[in-house]
Amino acid sequence: MSRILVLLVRDGPDVLMRIASLCRRRAFAIESLTIGPTETPGVSRVTLFVATDPAGARRLAANLAKLVDVIEVDDVSDRPLVVRDLAMIKVAAPPDARAGIMQLVQVFRARVVDVAADSLVIETTGTDDKVDGLLQVLRPFGVIEVARSGRLAMCRGPRAAASAGAA
Amino acid sequence: MSRILVLLVRDGPDVLMRIASLCRRRAFAIESLTIGPTETPGVSRVTLFVATDPAGARRLAANLAKLVDVIEVDDVSDRPLVVRDLAMIKVAAPPDARAGIMQLVQVFRARVVDVAADSLVIETTGTDDKVDGLLQVLRPFGVIEVARSGRLAMCRGPRAAASAGAA
Repeated sequence: MSRILVLLVRDGPDVLMRIASLCRRRAFAIESLTIGPTETPGVSRVTLFVATDPAGARRLAANLAKLVDVIEVDDVSDRPLVVRDLAMIKVAAPPDARAGIMQLVQVFRARVVDVAADSLVIETTGTDDKVDGLLQVLRPFGVIEVARSGRLAMCRGPRAAASAGAA
Repeated sequence: MSRILVLLVRDGPDVLMRIASLCRRRAFAIESLTIGPTETPGVSRVTLFVATDPAGARRLAANLAKLVDVIEVDDVSDRPLVVRDLAMIKVAAPPDARAGIMQLVQVFRARVVDVAADSLVIETTGTDDKVDGLLQVLRPFGVIEVARSGRLAMCRGPRAAASAGAA
């Protein structure tokens, strides 16, 4: 089972290491971790997917909240969410296969972001399922490289994830 | 100056901590780090943006390559790249502002992924510049929350980043 924590953290050289190290020490398996800037200078937002149950997530959240540079932790798992993963897929595409690949790209509402003589780079966003589905239909052509961002989660509705817990 | 390393790593509870900890110990500032699964089961791909010069990147790459569970490190900074960042932006959108926001979303080729009574969640991919540009035009409406994935980088052309170094 997967639980989803959203953290606001102060930027610093140690914060990522502290989070990873805490999860490791307490034997929580990180399934996905993404970190990126927010609208507040010096503050980043972390989306953390952890394989645990609700009680485990509560314990982990309490421990994370005690870390230096962690401003706020919110377990958003039970709220309505938009979850998105960015994937870039490089696929072999000799001229005679290109049209077929382009058609699949359209069906999946993905986008071609680079065209070379014998390959394409395709970009797609969506749930893991959608990305996996696209990968599956591209595999017969020859997938050369896959880069995935890890999952972002945002609560639906008007409030911010990491301040809604307190509301 | 930013250097971009692509790593292939074996999945494990420690690999993220080891990378973060090495960067910290050697005083390399991580600007962006993303990790996601590849087509090979048990192997993940890390995109690491580090504030350093070419010589620093060479040293860091050599040190990273020595870590347990790191299979391959490649400095792709000087190769032609596609760089992408996924952002989800929640913006205040009372009914009378919605049409104006939707128009901006179209101009930026972004996508609305959730509509609530008084807010929208917008998804966009692109370079930092594009995401920052969209944020700037949305700010007057009231940005409630921003989640960003960190940057993915993929080399243009037919080869895979993390095996091209050896070729």
